Amino acid sequence: MVDKISMPGKELYFKSAFSVDCVVFGFDQDSLKILVLKRGALPYMDQWALPGDLVHPEENLNHAASRILTSLTSLDDVYLEQVKTFGAVGRHPAGRVITVAYYALIKTNNQHIKPASWAKEVEWKKIAEVGDLAFDHNKILNSCIERLRRKVRTHPLGFELLPKKFTLTELQYLYESILDEKLDKRNFRKKLLGMKLLVDLNELQEGVPHRPARLYSFDQEKYEQMQVAGFDFGL
Amino acid sequence: MVDKISMPGKELYFKSAFSVDCVVFGFDQDSLKILVLKRGALPYMDQWALPGDLVHPEENLNHAASRILTSLTSLDDVYLEQVKTFGAVGRHPAGRVITVAYYALIKTNNQHIKPASWAKEVEWKKIAEVGDLAFDHNKILNSCIERLRRKVRTHPLGFELLPKKFTLTELQYLYESILDEKLDKRNFRKKLLGMKLLVDLNELQEGVPHRPARLYSFDQEKYEQMQVAGFDFGL
Repeated sequence: MVDKISMPGKELYFKSAFSVDCVVFGFDQDSLKILVLKRGALPYMDQWALPGDLVHPEENLNHAASRILTSLTSLDDVYLEQVKTFGAVGRHPAGRVITVAYYALIKTNNQHIKPASWAKEVEWKKIAEVGDLAFDHNKILNSCIERLRRKVRTHPLGFELLPKKFTLTELQYLYESILDEKLDKRNFRKKLLGMKLLVDLNELQEGVPHRPARLYSFDQEKYEQMQVAGFDFGL
Repeated sequence: MVDKISMPGKELYFKSAFSVDCVVFGFDQDSLKILVLKRGALPYMDQWALPGDLVHPEENLNHAASRILTSLTSLDDVYLEQVKTFGAVGRHPAGRVITVAYYALIKTNNQHIKPASWAKEVEWKKIAEVGDLAFDHNKILNSCIERLRRKVRTHPLGFELLPKKFTLTELQYLYESILDEKLDKRNFRKKLLGMKLLVDLNELQEGVPHRPARLYSFDQEKYEQMQVAGFDFGL
């Protein structure tokens, strides 16, 4: 592609790189968590960072984001959404690197996570316990959390984070954890059941140390029909 | 900044450029319009394109977006929002260029618009009459329209496009034009007045060929108080 047309001053501009960084959200034991990697390379050696990589010269952005996710999780069908691009001068010590932030939603159960090549450790951390990340990754994390909070109020994204069968209590914990606020149990159930997007499976939990609760699943087909009309979670 | 740290394979990656492209929305004579420029340079000579430019090596992204707006409109206090980054391989014939799309909202009245250096003409066009734009600018335009439509339902952004004093009819035309749908007059007025964000100025239009209508203004201060609580236009 390069040099098909000439451009005055081209050499001034064509010397930057770009990367993709991903906030990978998971829901585990009643808490919203994200995947962080401990860097095993300079810069920011031994600091925790978001999963990310430089975009290859002949690679599309979305492909780079999927590649990063697949290399971490071996999953190839993950909810992934572009959120914002961060391009402050000096954000990367190796040169001008702008980075496109994505967030991903995955089910944490049964996931074998392996760290990227530049990382020596990988961990699920609760949002509140993430601490200082490398580069501008805390800013990226905040943008992605904000987007997720806004989005779960109008889209049933939360279900991407739950197992196929879940209890209403798990669903409420999930929303409370994402929105970082307590929700009224009666109101929450009324709203969620009122949207008719949940299927009562007529099954009970098994092997729990308390009274087993009813299991539900999410009605994707119904949701797609409703989407045409537009709706609001109203949370 | 460059070369503070070494990076294996660096020369493979640090050879791309990035740009900012802006969808500049204005509301003029009952229609939503955007600013387009006729290109006077290769590639896409003589085609209409969105205002945009390469980001300078030592320039932040938001600064580049403001610079493009200021050079077009001489305005320096414009509502500007980053929407999405487009990075398909081959989207620019000069090499790998990813572009960060922003939209801007400006009041069309009293604006003297002057085209950028690479352009020979500048024009406000109705969305429906924009036609084929250079590069992937139609995709960028669509993303920005979608974002604006979503955003005006929950944020009083529309007022950025109106003169300080406006009639309820103008306000309705604005919303109809953005949402591309007819709104029921009675419902619209009830909702908008019910939100208590409009100030009745106790003034009438002057010099109009029909019965003059009441003028209103937008209560920014009240809105900022309400934002803390969160609200929904419900349109």
